[in-house]
Amino acid sequence: MIDPAVIVGTGLVGASVGCALSAAGLSVHLRDRVRSHAVVAAGRGAGVVEPVDPASARLVVVAVPPTAVPRVVASSLARYPNAVVTDVGSVKSKILDEVIALTEDASRYIGGHPMAGSHQSGPLTAAAELFADRTWVLTPRPDNPDWVVETARTLASVCGARIVEMSAADHDRAVAEVSHFPQLVSSLTAARLADVPRGDLRLAGQGVRDVTRIAASDPDMWVQIVAANRAPIREQLVALRDDLSGLIAALDEPDAVNDVLKRGNKGVRALPGKRGKRPDKLVPVVVQIPDAPGALGRLFADIAMNGINIEDLSIEHDPDREIGYLSIDVAPDRVDGLRRMIRDRGWGLRS
Amino acid sequence: MIDPAVIVGTGLVGASVGCALSAAGLSVHLRDRVRSHAVVAAGRGAGVVEPVDPASARLVVVAVPPTAVPRVVASSLARYPNAVVTDVGSVKSKILDEVIALTEDASRYIGGHPMAGSHQSGPLTAAAELFADRTWVLTPRPDNPDWVVETARTLASVCGARIVEMSAADHDRAVAEVSHFPQLVSSLTAARLADVPRGDLRLAGQGVRDVTRIAASDPDMWVQIVAANRAPIREQLVALRDDLSGLIAALDEPDAVNDVLKRGNKGVRALPGKRGKRPDKLVPVVVQIPDAPGALGRLFADIAMNGINIEDLSIEHDPDREIGYLSIDVAPDRVDGLRRMIRDRGWGLRS
Repeated sequence: MIDPAVIVGTGLVGASVGCALSAAGLSVHLRDRVRSHAVVAAGRGAGVVEPVDPASARLVVVAVPPTAVPRVVASSLARYPNAVVTDVGSVKSKILDEVIALTEDASRYIGGHPMAGSHQSGPLTAAAELFADRTWVLTPRPDNPDWVVETARTLASVCGARIVEMSAADHDRAVAEVSHFPQLVSSLTAARLADVPRGDLRLAGQGVRDVTRIAASDPDMWVQIVAANRAPIREQLVALRDDLSGLIAALDEPDAVNDVLKRGNKGVRALPGKRGKRPDKLVPVVVQIPDAPGALGRLFADIAMNGINIEDLSIEHDPDREIGYLSIDVAPDRVDGLRRMIRDRGWGLRS
Repeated sequence: MIDPAVIVGTGLVGASVGCALSAAGLSVHLRDRVRSHAVVAAGRGAGVVEPVDPASARLVVVAVPPTAVPRVVASSLARYPNAVVTDVGSVKSKILDEVIALTEDASRYIGGHPMAGSHQSGPLTAAAELFADRTWVLTPRPDNPDWVVETARTLASVCGARIVEMSAADHDRAVAEVSHFPQLVSSLTAARLADVPRGDLRLAGQGVRDVTRIAASDPDMWVQIVAANRAPIREQLVALRDDLSGLIAALDEPDAVNDVLKRGNKGVRALPGKRGKRPDKLVPVVVQIPDAPGALGRLFADIAMNGINIEDLSIEHDPDREIGYLSIDVAPDRVDGLRRMIRDRGWGLRS
């Protein structure tokens, strides 16, 4: 039903879709404005660079940079008269509006958003497994015939993704809330750090590093995303400003501060997490690890040999010395056993 | 010089100080309003519960809840006439002001702040290694005799900490910037999530989880910290509100959005990090791991056997299925080798 397929744009996402479809035995034709990208993607198993007979194409996946998507979707609808055309853009309403403005009949176009995050943007790290168990949002509309929606579902299924269907407007509101808004908050918070005395940053711990981690993201990409989804992002920013003004005005009142912190607790709990286990019931055991090949392997082998299940873990790097600390979360009844084993085996224990 | 020592308050921090001093061969006397806490701490090797001859005590470490610190410091200065008295409170100016108001001569008191973060608050998880390579801030004053400052330095050194000395006011400004302000931002951001439609949270990825992780912190503790450090916290919040208002007003201008994102990049880079290696030069390889004892151990053993150095790693849990993904960051030239090994050894590769 989706064979042969055409991928237009062979960056990480496009090339990875190609790898997944090719791995499933489908024939995939790769197109890219920069032909060498398509050649690299083909070299990673994403498909072939030879063109397809346009009338025979069943599916076109448009994976070009955000601002180019509407134009390429419209031209693909014209070029491949029998194909379903979908895209992988991270904002859906603006693309849809522009596609409708550019075409007579957009019923063969259905919006898509595979949520596979990565800092890498080229085809060099493409992999068929990129979408495995990731969310792939589809935004079907009343004017999409059933076979169009089914074709898009098949694409996401073959890629191993978990399909979520919602309207373009609902999608854009949701990503504004859970992705675009947190990105801007992280950037604003990190921007404050750029203004404080350098010596003060010696006191920075893991908390501020977590809050500002995504502030290291690529500005060019985020400028495009923000431009495409301004309305729901503005709504979140204005709501934050209201909450922030309320907190500033009430900073002397413990009840008001407590209310903000309690609502924060509630928000964290609302996020879907690992089932059945409350992270705050786990105890961290912190081990010093030499920054050398094999060290982690030997440590985990020791842990495995003792039958201790690791519930979660993270690595912290010492800013001054070439060593790292591994924080291993385990159930409270395993803490003493793990500590004893770590000491006995000669690893450096911190807590 | 610091022997015998008295620990007043045997929660996680107090008991861990006791463990570190005891491990160094010093005699430590434990006191707690709740005697059973002191007994538990003694059971973990933090010291003894028998009282010390007050005139012989050389060092008193006050590790009681924040609001009780000034009173306990003042009474300790009176009770132990020859001892240096220090504390472990996370805000210093307010404590100092109150201690000065409560005592004739505060010259034997020197403020301290060991920055050992943990969600655990009881003595059950106390460990001598809690402070190893952590920052321990001391806030010496002109009226402190040299021997008082030296005694506090010895305490931090014996605990294995890295000493940073600054004034109480500088300390409080620094922790407002790098700890208290990010905490409130995280709480405010998470609080917004509590108000959005539940279904929208299905699209939440790792970014928003990182930004809101510390929003799960204990409100009672943070209400006390905020109350003790309002002025510098307010300064940060007001600066954020100004930046936020500017962003809202200029959300339609790509240059203004770009500026916020660029300044965010700069702030992240300003944080002290692992030396010599730029994290954005690393490539993540994501492996599916069964949530069972030993799985990680076997995986890391396989990696070690192939001589691949892991630069960083993190675990993501699948919200719906009982599986986790391990994201392993390696140098670009090791990616293909690691992927091949993972496939060959039968692990599930995602990207």
